[in-house]
Amino acid sequence: MKFKMMYSFLKSDLDIIEKTLEEAVQADSALLRQASLHLLQAGGKRIRPIFVLLAAKFGTYDIHTIKKVAVSLELIHAASLIHDDVIDDADIRRGKPTVKEKWDNRVAMYTGDYIFARSLELMTQINKPEAHRILSNTMVELCVGEIKQMEDKYRFEQNIKDYLRRIKRKTALLIAASCQLGAIAADVEKDVQQKLAHFGYYVGMSYQIIDDILDFTGTEKELGKPAGGDLLQGNITLPVLFAMEDESIRRDILKVHENMPREEIDSLIIKIKQSPAIEQARKVSGNYLTKALNILEELPKNKANTSLKNIAAYIGNRKF
Amino acid sequence: MKFKMMYSFLKSDLDIIEKTLEEAVQADSALLRQASLHLLQAGGKRIRPIFVLLAAKFGTYDIHTIKKVAVSLELIHAASLIHDDVIDDADIRRGKPTVKEKWDNRVAMYTGDYIFARSLELMTQINKPEAHRILSNTMVELCVGEIKQMEDKYRFEQNIKDYLRRIKRKTALLIAASCQLGAIAADVEKDVQQKLAHFGYYVGMSYQIIDDILDFTGTEKELGKPAGGDLLQGNITLPVLFAMEDESIRRDILKVHENMPREEIDSLIIKIKQSPAIEQARKVSGNYLTKALNILEELPKNKANTSLKNIAAYIGNRKF
Repeated sequence: MKFKMMYSFLKSDLDIIEKTLEEAVQADSALLRQASLHLLQAGGKRIRPIFVLLAAKFGTYDIHTIKKVAVSLELIHAASLIHDDVIDDADIRRGKPTVKEKWDNRVAMYTGDYIFARSLELMTQINKPEAHRILSNTMVELCVGEIKQMEDKYRFEQNIKDYLRRIKRKTALLIAASCQLGAIAADVEKDVQQKLAHFGYYVGMSYQIIDDILDFTGTEKELGKPAGGDLLQGNITLPVLFAMEDESIRRDILKVHENMPREEIDSLIIKIKQSPAIEQARKVSGNYLTKALNILEELPKNKANTSLKNIAAYIGNRKF
Repeated sequence: MKFKMMYSFLKSDLDIIEKTLEEAVQADSALLRQASLHLLQAGGKRIRPIFVLLAAKFGTYDIHTIKKVAVSLELIHAASLIHDDVIDDADIRRGKPTVKEKWDNRVAMYTGDYIFARSLELMTQINKPEAHRILSNTMVELCVGEIKQMEDKYRFEQNIKDYLRRIKRKTALLIAASCQLGAIAADVEKDVQQKLAHFGYYVGMSYQIIDDILDFTGTEKELGKPAGGDLLQGNITLPVLFAMEDESIRRDILKVHENMPREEIDSLIIKIKQSPAIEQARKVSGNYLTKALNILEELPKNKANTSLKNIAAYIGNRKF
């Protein structure tokens, strides 16, 4: 099944989300408006809004309330990408020049700040202090995750626990928050809210691990950039940690540095792909996925439940 | 009267604020903790917390609630300074190396993001959705103000209205929010809340104009940096706009660029100081101050009112 088919009944609501996203960054500064729209209009899977909408389907679904939550979550995500691209000095994102590349680092910094602030402002239009609390807390964790990722670069002695804690902050908590906030905004009962949050957390973990695997197994065409980029930048992901259990690969990995010649990194990628590391990482992702699917079994059976199940399974098997 | 004497009855509460500030940035990352504390421990006037506390004195004052609001506002201010220093490539702030100088731009960006997020998180501990709304809205305006300041650099055809709108966003709204949020947290009645907000706005405008005047009239020792820094960086402030009414000074100002030799900028500063521009700017600041003081006349007469009056008058006459 194609990804878009899994939530086709949300099509018209997702169109509203797109429109609201654009409206949300209308600023009294042409520069800020253009820079904000630049990334948003480059597309993206809109995973976070989709989770918000689907979670809200378990309660009193009113698109005019829910859209604010959905857009708020997509904006937080967008802001963090814009700042990430400054940190990683990335030129291309979603097939288009990044904000820092098209304008400069200063514009990217303020644009990210602005989108963060807009996200929080939008959420406060929902009269639920709990939602404001969850969103700002998620943002704190996201920032800690980002800086941890920076601190942990090329730190080869880190362990799997460090990695899992980092991707929890960097990815899983925001997807958990998407599910939970969608549920809160739709007055879903407390118990179901909690379950949806846990579902989001497990899916988020699974999603990020697959992302980190694809950085090795994906082709340049699928990834939109050469494989092995994470490793080259010193990001020690799960496949790397598993691969380092092999003493010979470990020795090669310890030699990785930013300006390593392409042939060397390519041959290291082949070694890692031939080791059991990829399969081991896929298994960890699969375990999270199973936990996510188990939670869905406990939730009311409805169209949204089926969608969540399909999306989760898709995420666990996606190729890019 | 010395500045600190004006609010001496807040001394023990301000000690609590200092402690809470440090606690607020305790992160699960040594780097983030150190970078966050770096600026906070360098001191600062703590004007925003002082306004929060004084505004709360018009209602039910509970330091354990109010301190969260006060710290939240100081954090927003700190975060914006850290990001400003990245943009302005500033090495020194409050007599210490800036975060971007001591670490680097990446650390400064994430530290600012983290402190912003912490600020909002702290405010959500107060169960008042209105307070969350005001804070996030203030942050949006702050960001727009920052980017406008960047856009307006060396744009010599701007007018006084552009300048006033910019300092409103950059400075006055945050001081207005300090007064308003202190009042909201202390359940001050609506009408008094509004008046305190307006008071803060007028004081903030007056404060920033004086700041911009001091950049010309202050000595290097008072400013902690050479005079004329704003003009050299292309920030067109009120004294500059008034000075440009003189055709000969205008011609000189149009020639200003970042790498202008020190003698040239020094002689331009002397010309501006000898023109009526400084006095004209001081008059505008004075008008805002008068409006601020008039509002205090309408508020209940208490110790806090006297403090606000003294602080406002001090701000209008301060030399650094």
